[in-house]
Amino acid sequence: MNGLPEVTIVGTVVADPELKFVSSGDAVVNFTIAANSRRFDRDRGEWVDNKATFLRCSLWRQAAENVSESLSKGDRVIATGALEQRSYETDQGEKRTVYELAVTEIGPSLKWATAKVAKAKRSSTGGQANGFTPAAPVNDEPPF
Amino acid sequence: MNGLPEVTIVGTVVADPELKFVSSGDAVVNFTIAANSRRFDRDRGEWVDNKATFLRCSLWRQAAENVSESLSKGDRVIATGALEQRSYETDQGEKRTVYELAVTEIGPSLKWATAKVAKAKRSSTGGQANGFTPAAPVNDEPPF
Amino acid sequence: MNGLPEVTIVGTVVADPELKFVSSGDAVVNFTIAANSRRFDRDRGEWVDNKATFLRCSLWRQAAENVSESLSKGDRVIATGALEQRSYETDQGEKRTVYELAVTEIGPSLKWATAKVAKAKRSSTGGQANGFTPAAPVNDEPPF
Amino acid sequence: MNGLPEVTIVGTVVADPELKFVSSGDAVVNFTIAANSRRFDRDRGEWVDNKATFLRCSLWRQAAENVSESLSKGDRVIATGALEQRSYETDQGEKRTVYELAVTEIGPSLKWATAKVAKAKRSSTGGQANGFTPAAPVNDEPPF
Repeated sequence: MNGLPEVTIVGTVVADPELKFVSSGDAVVNFTIAANSRRFDRDRGEWVDNKATFLRCSLWRQAAENVSESLSKGDRVIATGALEQRSYETDQGEKRTVYELAVTEIGPSLKWATAKVAKAKRSSTGGQANGFTPAAPVNDEPPF
Repeated sequence: MNGLPEVTIVGTVVADPELKFVSSGDAVVNFTIAANSRRFDRDRGEWVDNKATFLRCSLWRQAAENVSESLSKGDRVIATGALEQRSYETDQGEKRTVYELAVTEIGPSLKWATAKVAKAKRSSTGGQANGFTPAAPVNDEPPF
Repeated sequence: MNGLPEVTIVGTVVADPELKFVSSGDAVVNFTIAANSRRFDRDRGEWVDNKATFLRCSLWRQAAENVSESLSKGDRVIATGALEQRSYETDQGEKRTVYELAVTEIGPSLKWATAKVAKAKRSSTGGQANGFTPAAPVNDEPPF
Repeated sequence: MNGLPEVTIVGTVVADPELKFVSSGDAVVNFTIAANSRRFDRDRGEWVDNKATFLRCSLWRQAAENVSESLSKGDRVIATGALEQRSYETDQGEKRTVYELAVTEIGPSLKWATAKVAKAKRSSTGGQANGFTPAAPVNDEPPF
């Protein structure tokens, strides 16, 4: 735990992830996960849909490229990361706050799908390689 | 997991919690937790503050009253719950979204503080209610 | 949260998952995830491997078949679930306790790999069943 | 996430925490949390107790002393940390594995109790002091 709230989310990717490259050459991918809650309706004796939470996500470098290649609209995923917050001002001078999940790990859920896994060819943009590398290389993430 | 993103947050209560009673007679408490991230600065050889996330929280009934009695501005807490989202329109017809942690469990952190614990007297408003009810209904008595 | 400890784990599948069918016809898959910790060694100025935790996992029905088809030894995965405990006696009458992650959701990590996702054909054994059923019963159809 | 499985647990402290001081002078506290699961029995139309998981916990230094002063048998707590594993051999040469929660943060639950919080007097054994200090000062924990 690096101090920010830790989130584990399971839900559906609502649109194809958008891959960009920042000026440093690093890849970044953005996408939104929608998670649905359900509750047991005792009167009806069944589970009913209840609420939805949409969470904007970001991911960097090699993993960003892998997400872009692997996931598309409608895929169910499991992701974990830190809940970050950014504040900004609108043109009208109003203060706004947005939340974003800085994803440290994500994969397609195998609940209703199969996945054919392939080790990614390494891009030129660094990072650890084999085996047991840390989940969160906390301190070399590009800042917003 | 009831379907919504699950959050565990450690941070500081930024202002005294606000206790209200809704028309049903149920208590609800609202407050905000600020969590700070830190990263290790290799050049300086030390941990430095980095980012902050502020998360609005809500909690119902007996637990709400307990929070109101027990916590105040500046207290460090640990909390867990589901990340909920509400959308609304401003008077100008703009769509806005707010996030809120529907807390299922919270307590004062013992990292830098001690706490004198006392079993709460049960208020009259016990039992499950509507609204932001805890994700996983539990009984009202300690299991042990 | 259904009451049991909630776990999110990222690590490596240490051997090919083992798929079995119980007498009811339900599929169950068992496998072990190894997670490694790292710490920053200030003297050496780098991250070093530290400790490993191996966690036995189980998963039921359609998802079990999907895991069996999709994952193999060495794959990095992200999983979440409830930490369950079982106690038993050895032939010598000694009491033993084993921990197991009752997985509610799992997928191959996209940190160093890509995955080709395909909606699973539904097997005949759908629906909720007994035993290690997911903590929070969900329906069998994607919510979107 | 430092790489080990992350756990959030809510449950009951099964016995008074045991405080010790290791040769370095650091305090360490050990205790066990019991968490109970519940499931909705559709036939009976109610929630019933189901399973229990007992998890051994450890915590160091100032926080250990605070736990020892604040918590006792029967208290409901919320805790988060990393799931660690140790292997050892019995006198008979059998290999055994124990799991332990290396607690990074813990507090008494306010679900059915109130707590009177007091900033701890700092003991002589270091650590961060005021305000927003990192949840997990990962790399200065004494090893087992």
